[in-house]
Amino acid sequence: MGFGQRLMDAIRHAGNPVLVGIDPRVESLPEGLAAGFSQDLAGLAEAYLTFGKGVVDSVSGLVPAVKFQSAFYEALGPEGLIALRDSLAHARSRGLIVILDGKRNDIGSTAEAYAQAYLGEVTIGDRKVTPWEADALTINAYLGSDGVRPFLETATPRGKGLFSLVRTSNPSARELQDLIVEGKPLYRRMAELVASWAEGCRDESGYSALGAVVGATYPEQLAELREVLTGVVFLVPGYGAQGGTAKYVASAFDAQGLGAIVNSSRGVSFAYQRKDLKATYGADWQRAIEHAAREMIADLAAHTPAGRLTSRAGHHA
Amino acid sequence: MGFGQRLMDAIRHAGNPVLVGIDPRVESLPEGLAAGFSQDLAGLAEAYLTFGKGVVDSVSGLVPAVKFQSAFYEALGPEGLIALRDSLAHARSRGLIVILDGKRNDIGSTAEAYAQAYLGEVTIGDRKVTPWEADALTINAYLGSDGVRPFLETATPRGKGLFSLVRTSNPSARELQDLIVEGKPLYRRMAELVASWAEGCRDESGYSALGAVVGATYPEQLAELREVLTGVVFLVPGYGAQGGTAKYVASAFDAQGLGAIVNSSRGVSFAYQRKDLKATYGADWQRAIEHAAREMIADLAAHTPAGRLTSRAGHHA
Repeated sequence: MGFGQRLMDAIRHAGNPVLVGIDPRVESLPEGLAAGFSQDLAGLAEAYLTFGKGVVDSVSGLVPAVKFQSAFYEALGPEGLIALRDSLAHARSRGLIVILDGKRNDIGSTAEAYAQAYLGEVTIGDRKVTPWEADALTINAYLGSDGVRPFLETATPRGKGLFSLVRTSNPSARELQDLIVEGKPLYRRMAELVASWAEGCRDESGYSALGAVVGATYPEQLAELREVLTGVVFLVPGYGAQGGTAKYVASAFDAQGLGAIVNSSRGVSFAYQRKDLKATYGADWQRAIEHAAREMIADLAAHTPAGRLTSRAGHHA
Repeated sequence: MGFGQRLMDAIRHAGNPVLVGIDPRVESLPEGLAAGFSQDLAGLAEAYLTFGKGVVDSVSGLVPAVKFQSAFYEALGPEGLIALRDSLAHARSRGLIVILDGKRNDIGSTAEAYAQAYLGEVTIGDRKVTPWEADALTINAYLGSDGVRPFLETATPRGKGLFSLVRTSNPSARELQDLIVEGKPLYRRMAELVASWAEGCRDESGYSALGAVVGATYPEQLAELREVLTGVVFLVPGYGAQGGTAKYVASAFDAQGLGAIVNSSRGVSFAYQRKDLKATYGADWQRAIEHAAREMIADLAAHTPAGRLTSRAGHHA
């Protein structure tokens, strides 16, 4: 089954488009969790694994997908990457669509190596092994087609996906992405390229294995890009902590409430730091996370076309 | 000491600007090396480590720097990354400047996490640990300043460096990088941004902690960008296997023959596949690599301003 179909099925099944980001940082772990482990890379990596599994268990059955930020695991050396591998596997075992946010980019056989690493398999002698087995990977297409096609060729036939940066939500994104090229901003040209690459890998859902990362801090851009990027799933960062609100992201969706996933990282997975949730749940950090995920689901249902999805989660909220 | 000074000293000491790329692939390892290890990820990772150490030992004392391609190690999962960490450490122990080619990119604290991982240190309790300890990292600045400054802030005070993609050497680079923005190609605008970021982190060598990746397949662009990018070291890929020749890269250098490093990966580190070198050196793949490195040194000395460097290596060639 194609990645577009897999992701749309997961969204329909969950009844919402929430993507929970898992970005562990030593200074933000639940009290007691970091302290309980040995103060070295392996110990902290184990704390990250426990944390990641805890977030996954709090939101699985509730949301369709999770996204792991590779940088924080890489920061712990190979030990951190063992924790990342095991976290990805745990999330997959819970039925979630698992996105690795690594923003990888390179050309030719090097791009292929990244794709095989994270979405495919590596051949050793007469054996095939899957080193990481994520469902999708974020990429950066500054290198053009040569830096995208090898990823797509590996991902598409395996039902795996990619999300290519188009317009990011950070303030300085404008320094390059908003420059005017032939009368249009550069991000628009990037979107047209993404649309052309996506064209060949659409499946029966109407959506492609190639998605786009489109920031939520510029709502009019979301609407413009939704037009250009037919059949391309949006990964929308910037909800919550970065200042986006549900109304801002509404135009990322198609008429059925499909075609977009909305990411919150700190807002959900560090929700136990909120005073109100601390008062309610005390040290039970996983229930605070679940609470924040349900809030986000309800907020998107109330203010975006995602409300048209049959909300299983809503019944329990 | 600043990274600019460290790299210029290494180039002067070696008497040449050759950057040997180490991109291990299972199908290209020296005969016998891959076969001798167990056919799983850990076994292949160990073969990559042996290969990487072998390349390092063949060229250390001869060239100033080596570059490891992260993708091929990531393709072997955490086991591959143990091999990467140990390869970086081995290259550093041999006195080489060690560049990790990871083309990382993200913003804010995520960019900082990548920088701490590869160039800095991570604080755990009251301890500071260095998970990878490369000397420099390649980055992709499509996200603008927010995606570059956190890298620079971590790297610069530690004498570490960054190389930001400006104009890459692959055919499809033109799809975005050559688009005309306000009368100039986009890569030129990227170069101006890189020059502005580099301005604040120049050291006594006149060169900055921030370098630029500038492809060698378009020689007139190298000359144009050398003008714009004052005090920015060029990392020039595309020599050898990708079709660049010494004459093409000549304009990357300053008048003293400094300010650029020229990368060859397959051309040097897979040199044992060449028929002529097989005939000369038989199964001694390390001597074939050394031979190819000396050839490249001589070629650059003959056809570029790098010939003005006192060539220690040349005396033995």
